[in-house]
Amino acid sequence: MKIISVNDIQKLIKIIGLKAFFDRLITAVESDFSRWGAFHKSVRHATYYAQGAIELMPCADDRFYAFKYVNGHPGNPAQGKLSVVSIGQLSDTATGYPLLLSEMTLLTAFRTAATGALAAKYLARQDAQSLAIIGTGAEAEFHVMGFSTLFPLQEIRYFDIDTAAMAKFSRNMAPYAFELIPCTSIREAVHNTDMVITATAAKKPQILFELQDIAPGTHIHAMGGDCPGKTELSRVLLEAAKIVVEYTPQALKEGEVQQCDASDIYAELWELVTNRKQGRENAAEITVFDSIGFALEDFATLRLVYELAIEHQIGSEIALLPEPHDAKDLFSVLLLTS
Amino acid sequence: MKIISVNDIQKLIKIIGLKAFFDRLITAVESDFSRWGAFHKSVRHATYYAQGAIELMPCADDRFYAFKYVNGHPGNPAQGKLSVVSIGQLSDTATGYPLLLSEMTLLTAFRTAATGALAAKYLARQDAQSLAIIGTGAEAEFHVMGFSTLFPLQEIRYFDIDTAAMAKFSRNMAPYAFELIPCTSIREAVHNTDMVITATAAKKPQILFELQDIAPGTHIHAMGGDCPGKTELSRVLLEAAKIVVEYTPQALKEGEVQQCDASDIYAELWELVTNRKQGRENAAEITVFDSIGFALEDFATLRLVYELAIEHQIGSEIALLPEPHDAKDLFSVLLLTS
Repeated sequence: MKIISVNDIQKLIKIIGLKAFFDRLITAVESDFSRWGAFHKSVRHATYYAQGAIELMPCADDRFYAFKYVNGHPGNPAQGKLSVVSIGQLSDTATGYPLLLSEMTLLTAFRTAATGALAAKYLARQDAQSLAIIGTGAEAEFHVMGFSTLFPLQEIRYFDIDTAAMAKFSRNMAPYAFELIPCTSIREAVHNTDMVITATAAKKPQILFELQDIAPGTHIHAMGGDCPGKTELSRVLLEAAKIVVEYTPQALKEGEVQQCDASDIYAELWELVTNRKQGRENAAEITVFDSIGFALEDFATLRLVYELAIEHQIGSEIALLPEPHDAKDLFSVLLLTS
Repeated sequence: MKIISVNDIQKLIKIIGLKAFFDRLITAVESDFSRWGAFHKSVRHATYYAQGAIELMPCADDRFYAFKYVNGHPGNPAQGKLSVVSIGQLSDTATGYPLLLSEMTLLTAFRTAATGALAAKYLARQDAQSLAIIGTGAEAEFHVMGFSTLFPLQEIRYFDIDTAAMAKFSRNMAPYAFELIPCTSIREAVHNTDMVITATAAKKPQILFELQDIAPGTHIHAMGGDCPGKTELSRVLLEAAKIVVEYTPQALKEGEVQQCDASDIYAELWELVTNRKQGRENAAEITVFDSIGFALEDFATLRLVYELAIEHQIGSEIALLPEPHDAKDLFSVLLLTS
């Protein structure tokens, strides 16, 4: 089986290019959401600790079985560690044999941004040129690059309570042709922007801004409300908005809509992708993609990375699976040392 | 993080020795079963296909989070592949960071045998000298070695419908000081033995033998009935036996007791280990350990292997986790190629 390290992902992005990789990833995620009925889906398995959460996220069709291990520990950065790290695996369903084991910390940032961009394709105004980001943590730059794949972004407004995180974002975004507007408050950042991304880490109910702070027609990619007790938007704002989720049972447990009922949800993303329901219907409505991450997105990502790893001969081989000469003779493997 | 390959497990067994490894593993499993209340437990997450099942098995305490990916594809050996392969991971709950990623195909065989031996310590007669194995597939030899760690085994009787699998078993067991008795039928194998291990692979309801085929006082380690629709013992035999399971909600779904009610279960293994319930109470009773494998056993195994890997400097390092100089600066990792 193939192992994809952090260094292999770096190589892959160097070979393919960041925008081209986002293009392929958004296409892969869209293509898999359009096959919604073909998947074995389930709510992710979460274990909660005082310090954070640890999750297993499986998703499978008849060809591939994918799962991801991922944590969320908001206190990690204070110790110099990432809040979210992840490892993913892709297996062949016909034999159950793993095919690929991959770093998924970078890939999770990529796929969250790709899924957000995909939802915005259906929910934001097509000519959206300005984007506000609240929370310029580890995933912020990925989102700008992902959204800029589908939108003619010119203006990026941003705010974080951590000024070092804002400086980091400015530095990383400087090489690209965006007008960068650091803001001194959330209200200033979201004022009159076409799209807003909420990406804060505090594990509590928050209200980052209210309905009157944003312009009519704003699309909100709400990705920071992603576990029980962690929300970023007010109930009033949610009631005024058209809300789309990834997977209703999980969203009601972990998303912004943990404050609402199932009846407040307009659609699941796959219903927009397959044209069963229309996304944005006019220039004035407020739309919210209540993104908490769904295993189908990891499935699409691992499937794509597997394909690209073969195509570009990336990754290494490690013997994590025994290969006895006789399939029933596992015991003799113990006696063979190489 | 540390990666433990098949070759690393081979090295470890060579350094420590097979019996000493079983000794430490049985102790680790017993020690964790004795802390039953300290664990986050759940039914494993299973996805079923026509060809087999794929499962994720998580288990955690406040210090470590462990999970295992494992399949069960009975048709694999016909294609030269193992029916069961597995990969496990151990993480630090304080940060969510993975500490160890390990091959778990060999380790699953080890831990199933170790758990079976542990249950037999409470359920079989202490002087048990004869053992019958029905099904001499990949896990058979591990079970003999595991049980022989705790019992003065002299006679091993065995039967498989695949004569090549029987020959393989004979060959692998030849170096050890057991009297090996190949049998021509299940009934011949289980006749007058102290302990019986059922380890067949067919994914259907079977009745391998009946109550009248075994002697009073026999202990049965029933490990082959381990997914919905796959059983090896009759309801009549089960009703006459003292049944112990690992974890009731999972056993009722996947074990022999999927044929029974919760009230037919005498105890969970941890209740014997902590002396809340007595195991065997007389020399004549029939006891059944309805083993389907529980994630706590993998937890104990991964915890032990992590400890041994550090102690004996085994395993390799692969960069599966990004290490940015600033925990909020994941994006810049993309720009660094080594």
